Amino acid sequence: MTFSDPASVAVVGASDDPAKWGHWLARGALSGVDRRRVHLVNRTGNPVCDVPTVRSLAELPETPELVVLAVPAAHVPAVVDEALALGTRGFVGITAGLEDEAGLVARIRAAGARLLGPNCLGLFDAATDLHLAWGRFEPGVLGIVSQSGQVGLELAGLAAQAGLGVSRFVSVGNQADLTAAEALADLVGHEMTKVVGLYLESFADGTSLLETISALRQAGKPTVLLTVGESGAAQEAARSHTGALTSSMDVVDAACRHVGAIRVATPTALVDLASFLAVTAPPAGTRVGIVADSGGQGAIAADLASVHGLSVPVLSAEVTAQLPLQASTRNPVDLAGAGEQDLANYAGSVEALLRSGEVDSVVLSGYFGSYGADTPALEPAEVAVARRIGAAALETGVPVVVHSMREDSATVRALKASGVPVQQTIERAVAALAAASRYTSGRPPIPVAPAPVTAPAYEPGYLNARELIANVPFPQAIAVSTVDELRQATRELRAPYALKADWLEHKSEHAGVVLGLTDPVPAFEEMRTRLGDGVYVLEEMDTRRDVVEVIVGARRDPGFGPVVLVGAGGTFAELYRDTAVELAPVSVPEAADLLRRLRCAPLFGGWRGASPVDLQSLAEVVAAVSSLLAQRPDLAEIELNPVRVGADGALAVDALIIPSGESPNETSGRRVA
Amino acid sequence: MTFSDPASVAVVGASDDPAKWGHWLARGALSGVDRRRVHLVNRTGNPVCDVPTVRSLAELPETPELVVLAVPAAHVPAVVDEALALGTRGFVGITAGLEDEAGLVARIRAAGARLLGPNCLGLFDAATDLHLAWGRFEPGVLGIVSQSGQVGLELAGLAAQAGLGVSRFVSVGNQADLTAAEALADLVGHEMTKVVGLYLESFADGTSLLETISALRQAGKPTVLLTVGESGAAQEAARSHTGALTSSMDVVDAACRHVGAIRVATPTALVDLASFLAVTAPPAGTRVGIVADSGGQGAIAADLASVHGLSVPVLSAEVTAQLPLQASTRNPVDLAGAGEQDLANYAGSVEALLRSGEVDSVVLSGYFGSYGADTPALEPAEVAVARRIGAAALETGVPVVVHSMREDSATVRALKASGVPVQQTIERAVAALAAASRYTSGRPPIPVAPAPVTAPAYEPGYLNARELIANVPFPQAIAVSTVDELRQATRELRAPYALKADWLEHKSEHAGVVLGLTDPVPAFEEMRTRLGDGVYVLEEMDTRRDVVEVIVGARRDPGFGPVVLVGAGGTFAELYRDTAVELAPVSVPEAADLLRRLRCAPLFGGWRGASPVDLQSLAEVVAAVSSLLAQRPDLAEIELNPVRVGADGALAVDALIIPSGESPNETSGRRVA
Repeated sequence: MTFSDPASVAVVGASDDPAKWGHWLARGALSGVDRRRVHLVNRTGNPVCDVPTVRSLAELPETPELVVLAVPAAHVPAVVDEALALGTRGFVGITAGLEDEAGLVARIRAAGARLLGPNCLGLFDAATDLHLAWGRFEPGVLGIVSQSGQVGLELAGLAAQAGLGVSRFVSVGNQADLTAAEALADLVGHEMTKVVGLYLESFADGTSLLETISALRQAGKPTVLLTVGESGAAQEAARSHTGALTSSMDVVDAACRHVGAIRVATPTALVDLASFLAVTAPPAGTRVGIVADSGGQGAIAADLASVHGLSVPVLSAEVTAQLPLQASTRNPVDLAGAGEQDLANYAGSVEALLRSGEVDSVVLSGYFGSYGADTPALEPAEVAVARRIGAAALETGVPVVVHSMREDSATVRALKASGVPVQQTIERAVAALAAASRYTSGRPPIPVAPAPVTAPAYEPGYLNARELIANVPFPQAIAVSTVDELRQATRELRAPYALKADWLEHKSEHAGVVLGLTDPVPAFEEMRTRLGDGVYVLEEMDTRRDVVEVIVGARRDPGFGPVVLVGAGGTFAELYRDTAVELAPVSVPEAADLLRRLRCAPLFGGWRGASPVDLQSLAEVVAAVSSLLAQRPDLAEIELNPVRVGADGALAVDALIIPSGESPNETSGRRVA
Repeated sequence: MTFSDPASVAVVGASDDPAKWGHWLARGALSGVDRRRVHLVNRTGNPVCDVPTVRSLAELPETPELVVLAVPAAHVPAVVDEALALGTRGFVGITAGLEDEAGLVARIRAAGARLLGPNCLGLFDAATDLHLAWGRFEPGVLGIVSQSGQVGLELAGLAAQAGLGVSRFVSVGNQADLTAAEALADLVGHEMTKVVGLYLESFADGTSLLETISALRQAGKPTVLLTVGESGAAQEAARSHTGALTSSMDVVDAACRHVGAIRVATPTALVDLASFLAVTAPPAGTRVGIVADSGGQGAIAADLASVHGLSVPVLSAEVTAQLPLQASTRNPVDLAGAGEQDLANYAGSVEALLRSGEVDSVVLSGYFGSYGADTPALEPAEVAVARRIGAAALETGVPVVVHSMREDSATVRALKASGVPVQQTIERAVAALAAASRYTSGRPPIPVAPAPVTAPAYEPGYLNARELIANVPFPQAIAVSTVDELRQATRELRAPYALKADWLEHKSEHAGVVLGLTDPVPAFEEMRTRLGDGVYVLEEMDTRRDVVEVIVGARRDPGFGPVVLVGAGGTFAELYRDTAVELAPVSVPEAADLLRRLRCAPLFGGWRGASPVDLQSLAEVVAAVSSLLAQRPDLAEIELNPVRVGADGALAVDALIIPSGESPNETSGRRVA
């Protein structure tokens, strides 16, 4: 309980100067005096916030259970050592720039104590009046764990504005001892916390983080993750296309899908989504019904829904028959004055959509929420309609989100209290709804990697790669080292041929591959003159028409482990960023889902009259690649580029496997003796 | 002056019931009594808002110059006729659902009067205390013209919140007489109006609208356009790919580019951008410098900038040398405590970026704006820094936008007053900046269509299309009707061949084209058996490797006239929506710019070792197609799909021209006698 409800706290570095951190921390700590003993330490011994202080911990009448470090960096080690000697169990390290952080942490741990931070903004727990942080906090339901103190503070401020409030706030700072995952784990049993907001910039121990988020989810607490890096400076130097194409954000998103966390890009988006999830269940799907009291606002909402990947289906005649006569009734539904004539028409229209079974959520946009505020006589009726809408949403299990032009009113408050999230801008209303619709229950579990296979060390080379990727069909091929062997091979294989230098990682860049050969001898002689003796591969070309080319790859992410990638073939994965990523391994059906997420997926169904391709066989290739990488920790990357799939199956026509911790093998590299 | 500063106004349908429109209109009109005579007409003759009323216009002591119609629809004609008889010059038609709107408008026009609306929310002019509209308005600088009254009202509300305010508000309703373009034209000389917000759902007379927006721009008043339709229900049934690929929103955007208007998708985005443009000039480019007081907030801002198409360049050593020592200085610049230590570091860092010449704008994100509010002693210093930042922005002509966690404070107000837009969320700060960066001065003028060419009516058919599209290279081709002619043609042309049925609009769908023929005779015989006698075309195939395929098309937009489209070839324009649209005609350099906007444009530069293509020759094709459509009003659509371009030039390998007002010509259609 040291970090959630300590019996006694000491703020070392307490200050009476309101511009200093030591002042805010002292004031915050003092707000908990009804619950615990609070001691202030200041080297002058002058009172702080009208409370007497002592000059050092040694002067205190007791050992403080938790010590807040707000003294200059140079003084921190002495304070810590003094506290450890007294028997203190926990530290909150506000101060940044410690000289020997690791040594300090080692001493703290050796003494059986723990450190939050250093370089953190502190700790707040609404359940126990523990306020040991810069900033003001409104008690509420959002649990915040943040790697950036200031982003955490922004979240807390936005949560206060939204009426959501904060249950617990942990700024983890440098995570020199206590980690974000540990701070997160504390929220599983933290009763006041209903939703979790997590800001992280790095995912060193991704797997244990995912397990904690899963545990939170099982406790009924959704996690909203805010992270950065989308602008994705340079991808780490990658040896395969798979590496270049798998952004760290794609991997984070894949991880989120598996544990049902939802990633957002801004503090506002985090708080808006948390506000949504705090009052209502997420929608079961992406179909939205829109009710507006003007055609313009309805159309704006529909455009935004479409931008966010939601659909706005045309309503059936059975549903539109229940709408007010003058309403434009397709979807968006434009009440066109019917709401103004009778406020009950708002509730009636929303209810008709909620009960239709044709939409998974309803957006109500426009003037509703303003009637009572503009014309007080209308307030009771409007509030009653608000409650009726909330009740219908609850009864049907279909969420309603309201965009009200009025930021606050009795009606807006009644909506929120009835489980209806309200936003003052339509973009925030739709964005929160769209994000919530990604939080569904049917997520696949975190993949469990099969037991590692111990195998002879992988020897790079095209033929070895083909052999290792079992179950994946390749064209017929024969290894040749001499012209005689090549001539013999042409008698066993069907033209046209591809000729490849077996050992080259990037064959095209070094002219180590020639395609479409009828007579491969001249090309072989030229290539051998240039690249030297070695194993060359004569291979049949895949000459099928109406095939779709796809890249299939797998790699090991430093935080989240094995991941699998599929992408549009040729230049298009790169040009259009048309890729999809999942944690590996994936089953064949999961692989098929992954492929269907590509924007080029319509090609699989038969485009402009072509036959549908054999998606099952392609999915089998993807699953095989994902399993192999997951099973073989000695492999860093596997790539089949391209895999060609037609109506009669998939064929991989190039393969590359990169062992872990190996340096690139290019023209100067390994040849066969 | 009838609609901007009438000498007298009568509200017919004035009401004392605060829930009725007639009440708001009466109250609004009365707020202008110091400037004009205000008359209230109510059929009971009871006082309204404590002011006496008359029962009809005839009882008034004078003819009201402007009459507001707020009576039920059935009574409107009688009121209008009575007013016209008295000599009234203008009407504001609030009432909706008039039975014979056209007849009423005809009578009003015949009498030399004008009508705003009907079915509108009214009119507000801050310069003349003219308040004849539902809603509350804060006087300010935003001129609003809105096709939706309620969207207009939302804009006015948001403008009030932003401290921007409204100079003039015109809800144009049904535009039965006065049009949006006319209402807009009134703003050119309207002194209080500094920025224009326009909401439109349709663009019937696009060209005159563009001219008005140009005039506003020349008067120093940028126009921000809000429109809908991005979710783009079904594209009108299109006969060419060009039709299917040219969304109405693409055309609106193209039109906006030419007049320097900026399109946004929501009321908030409109007001945020207007707030930006009201206080500072737009940035000259898209390079952004980011200063934050936490690494997290800087990274979030950088991600958003990237999402919005802005770039965050790495700063040179000369610039970073001027930043505080402890700052992380790449870009985003993280002050890392330096700002807190000395508030002047905020100004110093922002100034270093403003003066660097390396960025076109600066975003300052985080705690700045909160110091004085949290610690009153710091307020004077923080306000001084705010003014210093504003002065530096003004001096350098490089705009600064601030995201401050504090919605309002003395510092926030000082920033705004110094020409620095402030937003409370980083997404709104970055979105406004990104939108403003699209408002640059070097826009091409609205294209002037060359004088229409009178020519013999176009006879559809592939060969005729080839002939009409002058200056565009096609492969060698010969028309054949018999096997003998075909055999002769093979002696003049080089294999492989394509064989095409000349008259078919969609050849592939009807198997009216066969490619890659060495001996075309069997294919010809099969095709003629199936499709009948007629003109067939034997054509050389373009067998060049390393070519890029592009679709080039032009069509006539109902609102904005001729437009030209380019798109990625094959299936990719559709799959990835990789298209670019411009008003036609375009010059060759403009065509090259258009092509460079495609996401597949890297292919033109030589992709993975291929030679760069001859972009000039491709641009000539685009310009030729655009000019032809602009010159020939009798043509509805022109499409070359694909055009193949390689290092040695462009070659169009299919062509389709659709005459205006013609029905589709398919297998059952025209053959040569």
